[in-house]
Amino acid sequence: MISFQIRARDGSARVGQLTTPHGVIDTPVFMPVGTVASVKAIAPDDLTAIGAQIVLGNTYHLLLRPTPERVAAFGGLAKFMGWHRPTLTDSGGFQVFSLSGRRKLTEEGVEFQSHLDGARLSLTPERAIAIQEQLGADIIMAFDECPPAQSTRAYLEESLARTARWAKRCKDAWHSDGPSALFGIVQGALDLELRRRSAEEIGALDFPGLALGGYSVGEAPAQMHQSLPDTVPLLPDGKPRYLMGVGTPLDLLVGIGAGLDMFDCVLPTRVARNGLLFTSRGRLVIKNRRYADDQAPVDERCQCYTCRTFTRGYLRHLFQAQELLAYRLNSLHNLAYYLDLMAGARKAIAGGTFGAYAAQARAGWEESLGEEERQT
Amino acid sequence: MISFQIRARDGSARVGQLTTPHGVIDTPVFMPVGTVASVKAIAPDDLTAIGAQIVLGNTYHLLLRPTPERVAAFGGLAKFMGWHRPTLTDSGGFQVFSLSGRRKLTEEGVEFQSHLDGARLSLTPERAIAIQEQLGADIIMAFDECPPAQSTRAYLEESLARTARWAKRCKDAWHSDGPSALFGIVQGALDLELRRRSAEEIGALDFPGLALGGYSVGEAPAQMHQSLPDTVPLLPDGKPRYLMGVGTPLDLLVGIGAGLDMFDCVLPTRVARNGLLFTSRGRLVIKNRRYADDQAPVDERCQCYTCRTFTRGYLRHLFQAQELLAYRLNSLHNLAYYLDLMAGARKAIAGGTFGAYAAQARAGWEESLGEEERQT
Repeated sequence: MISFQIRARDGSARVGQLTTPHGVIDTPVFMPVGTVASVKAIAPDDLTAIGAQIVLGNTYHLLLRPTPERVAAFGGLAKFMGWHRPTLTDSGGFQVFSLSGRRKLTEEGVEFQSHLDGARLSLTPERAIAIQEQLGADIIMAFDECPPAQSTRAYLEESLARTARWAKRCKDAWHSDGPSALFGIVQGALDLELRRRSAEEIGALDFPGLALGGYSVGEAPAQMHQSLPDTVPLLPDGKPRYLMGVGTPLDLLVGIGAGLDMFDCVLPTRVARNGLLFTSRGRLVIKNRRYADDQAPVDERCQCYTCRTFTRGYLRHLFQAQELLAYRLNSLHNLAYYLDLMAGARKAIAGGTFGAYAAQARAGWEESLGEEERQT
Repeated sequence: MISFQIRARDGSARVGQLTTPHGVIDTPVFMPVGTVASVKAIAPDDLTAIGAQIVLGNTYHLLLRPTPERVAAFGGLAKFMGWHRPTLTDSGGFQVFSLSGRRKLTEEGVEFQSHLDGARLSLTPERAIAIQEQLGADIIMAFDECPPAQSTRAYLEESLARTARWAKRCKDAWHSDGPSALFGIVQGALDLELRRRSAEEIGALDFPGLALGGYSVGEAPAQMHQSLPDTVPLLPDGKPRYLMGVGTPLDLLVGIGAGLDMFDCVLPTRVARNGLLFTSRGRLVIKNRRYADDQAPVDERCQCYTCRTFTRGYLRHLFQAQELLAYRLNSLHNLAYYLDLMAGARKAIAGGTFGAYAAQARAGWEESLGEEERQT
């Protein structure tokens, strides 16, 4: 199980310590995503070197392959992947609801087909909890429905009520004396009234932590940024607050400023594989011809292995030649950038300077972003 | 420039120290291949961890991309790729002669088309040396013709004479007072008479080291194993002897036993990407279903990061899921296996037990190889 202590505050932002069976996590924290028990192109040695504290796995993917039974036989997700620190699994709901046309929703749960071989499978709140308890992560998530941003209000209300009933079933199925702490998920899209209703219903179940789902599902980033400051205070102050599947470096700063503690996103690793690198001066498209003769590191302020060892010119060469090493080096840097951004935020909050820190980071990005995009 | 000292002998096998501008190399040595300035899926940190001493780059590939001018501007091949130890480049001849249908051979050199964009290019002995001096490796190779194993004797004789004329032109073009030591290449296929003639002609040019080319070009391994003990003594005893493009672990032991000092091959990394792992008990096909629940490391006797950290079951999962991490972890292990085999050989030669060492390694492989292949 977990415990959570808030150590410092700066406005709505907070620094906390989240204690789990596999170790202590300093928050705000960004959690690299290891979909099928591997952060793509990145091994645990790299994760440790850049200060990753917790890694996320995806229940839907692990259910298909290698199966929860097999992960359990290997000692659970962390041990299976050679990562001896905390892990978190999602409930599978988000992926299953993305399989539109291949899934059928009932009050009981969802029937769906595997994207790998078409096998018919189902997830219910009870089964999502049982699978996650087999996977054995330190934090597991309730099985919810995550409706798209463009849903009608009538559908959102129906979905919200079902998600609340499912949350209760998850709570009842969960072994609260086991090693996995169950987080509830608050939905409600961009509608503050629905968010309030969901926060009350889910909050009443007294989960060890709470998450906001239903962001980054098709709405404009500005809409999310506008929504968070009103929505986050609906979650209990003393519990960890997790914004699921978000986002860009700017999204993280906005989320931290609104009082959120945990974030995950495939963005830094996915765009790294496409050659987009995050830096303190904005985004850098490594395949750009202007970097062919550039002997500077990706980001002079970054201390990751990629930036300590290689030039932009070499990284461009690797990317152009489609060398496998490009994926590791680019992903490593982007994750290091995210983790450094969070470490800086924790320090700034503790020092009462988070507003200035966020403003400075944004100013740095804006400095070169336009220039880069013109040349791409 | 280089110097070479033989420190111990055991039969024809020898342990030596090859001193280069970028550091000292203990021989016999296996050189991982970094075709386009990257050992595929493996960064310098991994190479250092497993005890790699020297890395090979391919002139043909580097000529096309990123170009020798660019590599020179970055401080040479080693610095460009973030590897601060010795490097060796081939002359480009082997790749160019593989472009059958896309190249034209004259006394002057070879005209060919880039496999990337069809651009017309040419290599001559003089240009191959100039390019390699730009790349700046510690050891560079003469530009030779490497005829296929099934060539007629008449063609082999014609080719051998041209290779000798080209070797002289390479020697004349080479800056012997520069940082790159030029090795001559002895050809002659499986014909001992031709090998003798070539060894005399190339040997007379007094290169700092000599290589055997024209093996592993289509002949049966047993033919090479039979040829080496007669051929290697044709090379000067006091200079480093390099067997190009070879081979399997068994090939290396046979080559060491015959008195060779240096080896390179893409085999360990190429087959690793296809899931074939070398172990002290033979070959292991990681996708095999029998490994799905196997919690043992790939090789209990191996101390590489892969074997210290991950189970066969996890590596099988990564390979089946086509995770990028599989390529790094598999390649790292196979290279570690090769480098450990060489370190063991050096120790055995120094202790006068190389024969027993080689016999023991072969017995280990034969133990499980048949079983594995039946189940694949």
